[in-house]
Amino acid sequence: MPTLSHRRADVVVTVLDSAGHPLADTDVVVAQERHAFLFGNIGFDFVGPANGEGDASETSSAGSAGALADLWLDVFNAATLPFYWGGFEPVRGRPDTARLLTAARWFADRGVVVKGHPLAWHTVGAPWLLDLTTDEIADAQDARIRREVADFAGVIDTWDVINEVVIMPVFDKEPNGLTRLAWDRGRIPTIRLAFDAARQTNPSATLLLNDFDMSTAYECLIEGVLEAGIQVDAIGLQSHMHQGYWGEGKTLAILDRFARFGLPLHLTETTLLSGELMPAHIEDLNDHQVASWPSTPDAEARQADEIERHYRTLVGHPAVQAATYWGITDEGAWLGAPGGLVRADGTPKPAYDALRRLVKDEWWLAPTTLRTSSTGRVPVSGFLGTYTVDGTAFSLERDGEVVVRLEG
Amino acid sequence: MPTLSHRRADVVVTVLDSAGHPLADTDVVVAQERHAFLFGNIGFDFVGPANGEGDASETSSAGSAGALADLWLDVFNAATLPFYWGGFEPVRGRPDTARLLTAARWFADRGVVVKGHPLAWHTVGAPWLLDLTTDEIADAQDARIRREVADFAGVIDTWDVINEVVIMPVFDKEPNGLTRLAWDRGRIPTIRLAFDAARQTNPSATLLLNDFDMSTAYECLIEGVLEAGIQVDAIGLQSHMHQGYWGEGKTLAILDRFARFGLPLHLTETTLLSGELMPAHIEDLNDHQVASWPSTPDAEARQADEIERHYRTLVGHPAVQAATYWGITDEGAWLGAPGGLVRADGTPKPAYDALRRLVKDEWWLAPTTLRTSSTGRVPVSGFLGTYTVDGTAFSLERDGEVVVRLEG
Repeated sequence: MPTLSHRRADVVVTVLDSAGHPLADTDVVVAQERHAFLFGNIGFDFVGPANGEGDASETSSAGSAGALADLWLDVFNAATLPFYWGGFEPVRGRPDTARLLTAARWFADRGVVVKGHPLAWHTVGAPWLLDLTTDEIADAQDARIRREVADFAGVIDTWDVINEVVIMPVFDKEPNGLTRLAWDRGRIPTIRLAFDAARQTNPSATLLLNDFDMSTAYECLIEGVLEAGIQVDAIGLQSHMHQGYWGEGKTLAILDRFARFGLPLHLTETTLLSGELMPAHIEDLNDHQVASWPSTPDAEARQADEIERHYRTLVGHPAVQAATYWGITDEGAWLGAPGGLVRADGTPKPAYDALRRLVKDEWWLAPTTLRTSSTGRVPVSGFLGTYTVDGTAFSLERDGEVVVRLEG
Repeated sequence: MPTLSHRRADVVVTVLDSAGHPLADTDVVVAQERHAFLFGNIGFDFVGPANGEGDASETSSAGSAGALADLWLDVFNAATLPFYWGGFEPVRGRPDTARLLTAARWFADRGVVVKGHPLAWHTVGAPWLLDLTTDEIADAQDARIRREVADFAGVIDTWDVINEVVIMPVFDKEPNGLTRLAWDRGRIPTIRLAFDAARQTNPSATLLLNDFDMSTAYECLIEGVLEAGIQVDAIGLQSHMHQGYWGEGKTLAILDRFARFGLPLHLTETTLLSGELMPAHIEDLNDHQVASWPSTPDAEARQADEIERHYRTLVGHPAVQAATYWGITDEGAWLGAPGGLVRADGTPKPAYDALRRLVKDEWWLAPTTLRTSSTGRVPVSGFLGTYTVDGTAFSLERDGEVVVRLEG
């Protein structure tokens, strides 16, 4: 089992009173406020509620959005919001900016890091791209990225810039503008276009390349992108495990292969089911359509076991910086699959409890009373993140010394 | 069916006598000498015989090497010779240069274009690389390429520079130096090392990147290599169809995907079986070991049909410049598979006859008597290549006019 030493730090905090004198031989309360590691989930379900959409009479069996939000916020510190072009700007020139900005601010106000997903993709594309020439598509894509990255800067500073480029030029499910662009110009020029637009608009943003393809193809693409001098801040790895949990061996092998590039890894889209698995022969998960896909007690126990094992593997690997689960509730889940952590009736599944126990218990320092030394010093050991001592914040970033002056 | 117009030219030849006057109203014999298209095969079986190895008492059931050579030379104009490092230089500093040079000259003397295969690969590697550091492996690989490309220049000017790089860094069948190099430095730097060494040694050589991986992974690798500014002269596509003929649809889709880079395509390793197919679940063909794998009449008929269809597809696609079949005789064939065009007893299979009929009959201008006009002109239409008129050579390269002055 990994020691998790790369996730932890041991510091000695010198506590000063508000006048700047060491607070000697005094009980203080130290508490963790936030993980440095990004425990993410999608925030799709809260875009409407954050905008005051829906009313009491429409409240579903999932219970109030407030209860779901409480569950969400109790575990997660990073949200992925939807920027699928076809949904965000179905009619050219009428983007859904105001509504998404309200939702993004709702999360940001609660201390959540918000990511936009995705700025460029061939699926759920803007239908009006089909009427454009390749050059016009390129221009529209460039302008769309610059607009969103500018409009959301300061609220959303992390972006899945471009999604699933491995398959993009040879994607044959439906005609779309991005496949044409990537076929005509090539994958790397398309990635360069997207990254240049985002980087130039928000130079300090965290920009991701994201893919579901965990084969050598994605490795080759990344090598080419880096050789071409495109600055990628983190490598996004999807892991929708509708066809079964990967297991530690496969997961670690993937992490090692993609860690080789020396970039942080973000597990951007993780799904584990609490119901029947999707048959192994399905290649495009979207092809599996079933009338009913219930969450069952046995499968919920399996999901809880798997989510714990999976997060131990991810947190145990030094290259992983973020792990985003793909779904909070089964209600309205992608493909109708029971991949959520909360049942459609609003009750948490065992997987929710298992993940919460890791994130907010085993890997967490609850408020703890400690006594300072005669020189005001107190040792604190915990997961990297932000902490408070008697309500004043400090960071646990690495082993060493920290000085905290208590606020008046 | 493709028109093959991209393979043909219509010229009007003005025939001059040796004094330079038009040869009017005279019968001349026009004959094709050689295809511009490279119809290749491996020349492995002739390395020994070209060096005078073996004697009459060792002559196998395949009949004399001379008879096999006649069959080979009657159809093919391009030979691939083995430069597997582990076989070529099993003891460091003792390369098999003289023997291979004799074999290469044997082919070159018969008008055959010779290619060396491969200069860098993780399989059949030099065992002594395992004792070296990564930097030493890089230096040894660089020096080996420079040595071979220099030693064979003028006889071998076409090289599969590096083989199967998609899997190279993650190849896990056996420890080897090249996998370590490609893992530590990356695929593209490894390719750059190999291509730089070859290019600097023989700037006019035709240098190939070669792979069996026809997935998006190889596309992504090629894009990255080209973005990195590495000059690849032709893209090598393997097509060992031990598990069944691809069919025209799959073949064309592959050709179109790889033609997108604007480089010539060389089908470098084509196999079609005249026996039982290998089960579809085998991933690494080397894993399939059987005691006996006979060529059967039914399967020979299938192989003949498939080879004709496959070559029609390849020759019909404008991007394809070369098609190398992987095996002349079943005797000693890779994996013991009946993929040869000649049975182990030395008799040609129907596939041999089918391919010969295409290459030397349907796509070929046999010696033909034509009458020149009053101004010495005669129209010639045929496949691109070299021709003779009354024994004097000329080239059919494109539609237009050609003037040939007959030799004394």
